[in-house]
Amino acid sequence: MSNGDIFVGEVLGTAILIMFGVGVCAAVNLPYSKARATGAGWIVITFGWGFGVLAGAYASAPLSGGHLNPAVTVAIAVDTGEWGKVPLYIVAQFAGAMLGAVLAFLVYYSQFRANGEADKAQPTLGIFATAPEVRNPAANIMTEVIVTVGLVLPILSFNKNDGIGVGQIAGQGAGIYGSGISILLVAFLVVGIGLCLGSPTGYAINPARDLGPRIVHALLPIPNKGTSDWSYSWIPVAAPMAGGVIAGLLFNLIY
Amino acid sequence: MSNGDIFVGEVLGTAILIMFGVGVCAAVNLPYSKARATGAGWIVITFGWGFGVLAGAYASAPLSGGHLNPAVTVAIAVDTGEWGKVPLYIVAQFAGAMLGAVLAFLVYYSQFRANGEADKAQPTLGIFATAPEVRNPAANIMTEVIVTVGLVLPILSFNKNDGIGVGQIAGQGAGIYGSGISILLVAFLVVGIGLCLGSPTGYAINPARDLGPRIVHALLPIPNKGTSDWSYSWIPVAAPMAGGVIAGLLFNLIY
Amino acid sequence: MSNGDIFVGEVLGTAILIMFGVGVCAAVNLPYSKARATGAGWIVITFGWGFGVLAGAYASAPLSGGHLNPAVTVAIAVDTGEWGKVPLYIVAQFAGAMLGAVLAFLVYYSQFRANGEADKAQPTLGIFATAPEVRNPAANIMTEVIVTVGLVLPILSFNKNDGIGVGQIAGQGAGIYGSGISILLVAFLVVGIGLCLGSPTGYAINPARDLGPRIVHALLPIPNKGTSDWSYSWIPVAAPMAGGVIAGLLFNLIY
Amino acid sequence: MSNGDIFVGEVLGTAILIMFGVGVCAAVNLPYSKARATGAGWIVITFGWGFGVLAGAYASAPLSGGHLNPAVTVAIAVDTGEWGKVPLYIVAQFAGAMLGAVLAFLVYYSQFRANGEADKAQPTLGIFATAPEVRNPAANIMTEVIVTVGLVLPILSFNKNDGIGVGQIAGQGAGIYGSGISILLVAFLVVGIGLCLGSPTGYAINPARDLGPRIVHALLPIPNKGTSDWSYSWIPVAAPMAGGVIAGLLFNLIY
Repeated sequence: MSNGDIFVGEVLGTAILIMFGVGVCAAVNLPYSKARATGAGWIVITFGWGFGVLAGAYASAPLSGGHLNPAVTVAIAVDTGEWGKVPLYIVAQFAGAMLGAVLAFLVYYSQFRANGEADKAQPTLGIFATAPEVRNPAANIMTEVIVTVGLVLPILSFNKNDGIGVGQIAGQGAGIYGSGISILLVAFLVVGIGLCLGSPTGYAINPARDLGPRIVHALLPIPNKGTSDWSYSWIPVAAPMAGGVIAGLLFNLIY
Repeated sequence: MSNGDIFVGEVLGTAILIMFGVGVCAAVNLPYSKARATGAGWIVITFGWGFGVLAGAYASAPLSGGHLNPAVTVAIAVDTGEWGKVPLYIVAQFAGAMLGAVLAFLVYYSQFRANGEADKAQPTLGIFATAPEVRNPAANIMTEVIVTVGLVLPILSFNKNDGIGVGQIAGQGAGIYGSGISILLVAFLVVGIGLCLGSPTGYAINPARDLGPRIVHALLPIPNKGTSDWSYSWIPVAAPMAGGVIAGLLFNLIY
Repeated sequence: MSNGDIFVGEVLGTAILIMFGVGVCAAVNLPYSKARATGAGWIVITFGWGFGVLAGAYASAPLSGGHLNPAVTVAIAVDTGEWGKVPLYIVAQFAGAMLGAVLAFLVYYSQFRANGEADKAQPTLGIFATAPEVRNPAANIMTEVIVTVGLVLPILSFNKNDGIGVGQIAGQGAGIYGSGISILLVAFLVVGIGLCLGSPTGYAINPARDLGPRIVHALLPIPNKGTSDWSYSWIPVAAPMAGGVIAGLLFNLIY
Repeated sequence: MSNGDIFVGEVLGTAILIMFGVGVCAAVNLPYSKARATGAGWIVITFGWGFGVLAGAYASAPLSGGHLNPAVTVAIAVDTGEWGKVPLYIVAQFAGAMLGAVLAFLVYYSQFRANGEADKAQPTLGIFATAPEVRNPAANIMTEVIVTVGLVLPILSFNKNDGIGVGQIAGQGAGIYGSGISILLVAFLVVGIGLCLGSPTGYAINPARDLGPRIVHALLPIPNKGTSDWSYSWIPVAAPMAGGVIAGLLFNLIY
C-alpha cells in the first residue's frame, strides 16, 4: 500500500464511520427526526454504529486495510514491531473523524437548527462525543481500557484464521478483507460491544471517534450547542490507547 | 447479459424491493396490522427495507446484476464510461418499483380499506413515498446527496475486492453476486443508512424507490388516500441522481 | 439422498423450526415469560422465526437439503418436473411441525399452566397457528399467495448462483448448503418477509407451519386453550401451496 | 492443539463470552446505564449474548476450537468417544466464566456501586446467573434439557458440511472456524435460542455460564447484592449437561 492510498483510505473510511455514528446519535436525540419518536433506543444506536463500521471498512479496505481506529493501529504495531506508518494512519483517522462529523452535521442541518431554536434546546455534545453516566475518572478509565481490549483482541486473533483475517496489518494490503465476511464479523462485534459493554461510558474505544468529533463540535456554529466538556476529553483518548497497547501485548503473548 | 435478462431482472428485483419496503411502511402505519401495536418503530422499518434489498438483489443478481437503483446504475456508468444500457436499466427499475407498490397495496388491501373507512384516516402517502421532517429544499437536497454518496461509494469500492464485489457493472453478469456475501453486506449497509442517516428526509437515495410508488399512489383507488405531494417529488429524484454522479466521480478519482 | 435421510432430515429440521417459532410466540404472549414485559414485539417475533429457519435448515441440510416447507418442495417439483419424492417430503414436514409444536409446549409448560389458571386466560391459538387481522377470505388468500411467492422465488433464484445456492433441489444432496451463507440469507429473507409482509395474516407461507401446530393445539391438554378456529384453517394451507406453484412456474419462465 | 493452547483458548473465549453476557444484563438492570432507560429489553439481551458468543469464539477458535460450553464439549465426546481432553476443556471453561464475570463487574463498577447505594437496590443475581420465572424443578429441568439439545444438535450437524463446520471436535484445531461463517451462524443460533426458547428459565444451556458467574457473585464485594440462590444452582448445571449427552447420542444416531 502506498502512503497516498493509506491516507485516502483511512480518511475516507473513518469519515464514513463517523458520519454514520454521529448520525445515529443525532437521529435519536434531535427533534424533527423520524427515528426519534418511534421507540428508538439502545438497539438503534448500537446497530447504527456497527453498520457504520461495516460501511467505513468496506470503503477503505482496498486502500488502507481499514483500521479506522488508532487503538487498532497501535495494537498491530505493538504486535508486529512495525511502527513506521503508525503516525500516517493516526493523522488520517483524526482527519477522517472530523470530516465525518461535519458531514453528519450537514445531513442533520435542519434538525440541529430546530433544536437550537427550541425553548429547551437539547445539549448537543452527546451527539458528537462520549460522556460517562457516572463521572469517576478511575472507573471510567478502567471501563474504557477493558472494553477496548474486548474489541481489539478478537479482531487481532481473528487474523489467525488464514485467508480471511481482518488483518489490518500494515503492509498486507487490500486482500485482507478479501472474503467480506471479516467486515461483517467486526461490525457485529462492534454492535455486541455497544450492547453489552457500552453503557457506562458510551464506548469511545477509539481515540479518533471521540476527540475528532469533539473538536468539530467546538468549532462548528451549532446553535445553542452547550459545552464541549474538555475536562473529560483526555480519558476517551488515553484509555483506548492503553487498551490497544495491552491488547497487542496480550495477543503477542497468547498466540 | 441479454437486454431481455436485464429488463426482467431489474423489473423483478425492484418490484420485490419495493413490495417489501412499502409493505413495512404499511405494517407500521395502517390499522389492523399485527406489527402496528407492538412497539414497532425505526428498527422495524430500517431492517425491513434492508432485507427488501436482500430479497430483490437475491432474485435479480443472476439476470441483471441487481442494481435496483438508478443512482447505482448512473454511478457505474460515470465510472466506466459505458452508458449504452443505462436507459434500459432505469426504465426497468421504474416499472419494477411501480409493480412492487401495487403488490404491496394488494398484500395490505384490507388494512388500506379499514384505514379509509376509519373516522380519522391516516394519510397514506408516507407508506409509498418519502417526505422531509423539515421542509427546506436546500437542506433536503444536501441530505439526500450526501446520504446517496454514503450508499453508493461503499457499494462501488467493495467491488475492488476480487471475486466477491457486488459488482453491478453492466456486462459482468451473474457471477458478481457469486459469493452471496455481497448481497448481505449491501443489505446491512442499507439498514445502517436508514438507522443513521435516514431520519431527516426518509432516505429516498433511489429515484425509482420514490417516484415509482408515488405515481402508483396517485393512480390507485386507495380510499381517503390524501395528497401525493408533487411539489416535493422532484427532490428525491434529482438529489439521489446527483449523488450517484458524485459517487461515480469520487470513486474514479480515489481508486 | 436416501429416503430415510430425507425423512429424518425434514422431520428434524421442521421440528426445530416450529419449536423456535411457536416458542417465540409463546414468549411474547404468555404470562411469566421474561420476554413478555420487556418491550418485545414484532422485531422479536420476526427475528425469532428467522433464526428458527436458520437452526432448522442448519440441522437438516446435510440430510434432506432442508426444505422444511411444502410450498418450497412443490415449487421445486414444478420447476424440475420431478415429483417422485414430494409426498415423502411433505409427510415428513407435517410430522416435524407437529413434533416441534409439542416440544415448544413442553418448554413453556409452566407458562401455559399459569395462563390457564389466570382469571382471564389468553387464548392460545395465536401461539400455534396464524389468524388474519381482518377476516376476509379473498383478501387473506391474495395476501398469502403473494407473500409466499415473495419467499419462494428469491430462494429458487438464488440457486442460480453456482455453488452456493440454497438449492433444495431433491437429489442434489448435502452439498447445497455447503457454504453456510445460503442458510443465513434465507433466514434474513424470512425475517424480512415477516417485518414487511407478515402483518395482515401472520405469514403462514408454509402449510406445515400452520396446520401441524393447529392440530397439536386441538389435541394437547392445554388448560383454557380456546378455539382452534378450523373455519380459517384451509386458507394457510391452500394459499401458500398455490403460491409455491406460481413461484415454480414464474421461476421456470424467467430463468 | 497443545494442552496449553486449549487451556488458554477456552479461558480467553469463555471470559469474553461471559464478560459480554453479564455485561448486557448489567446494562439493562442497573441504574446509570445508558441502555437502561431507552427501551432496551429482550432484543438487547438476546443479541448481546449472541454477539458475546461471536467475540469469544472469534478469539478462541485458533487455539482451542472455541467450545466455551461444557455441554458442547461433552456432546462431542459422546459422539466421538474421545474423552481424554474433556476435563481440561471444562476446567478452563469454568475458570474463564469466572474471569469474565469479574471483568464485567469492573466494567460496570460505578453502576453496581450506585445500585448498592440506592434506597431500593435491585437484586443483582439476575445479572450473573439464571433464574426460572416459575420455580418448578421438573419443568425447569425439562426446559433446559430441550433447549440445550436445540442448541447443540444444530452446532454438531453443521459440522457435517465439509470445510466450514463449527467443528469444535477436539483435535481438529484452528482450521475448523476457517471460514468465519460458522462463528456467525452459531452467534445467530444463540440469539434465536434466546428469543424463542430462553424466556422460561433464562437459558443457561451452559453449565459454566451459570455456575461460574454465580460463584463470582457470591465472592465479590458487591454492595447490597442479595442472595446467590444456591437451591436452584444445580439445575442449570445438571440439565444442560444432560442435554449435551442427549444431543451427542441423537447426533450419532441420526447422521
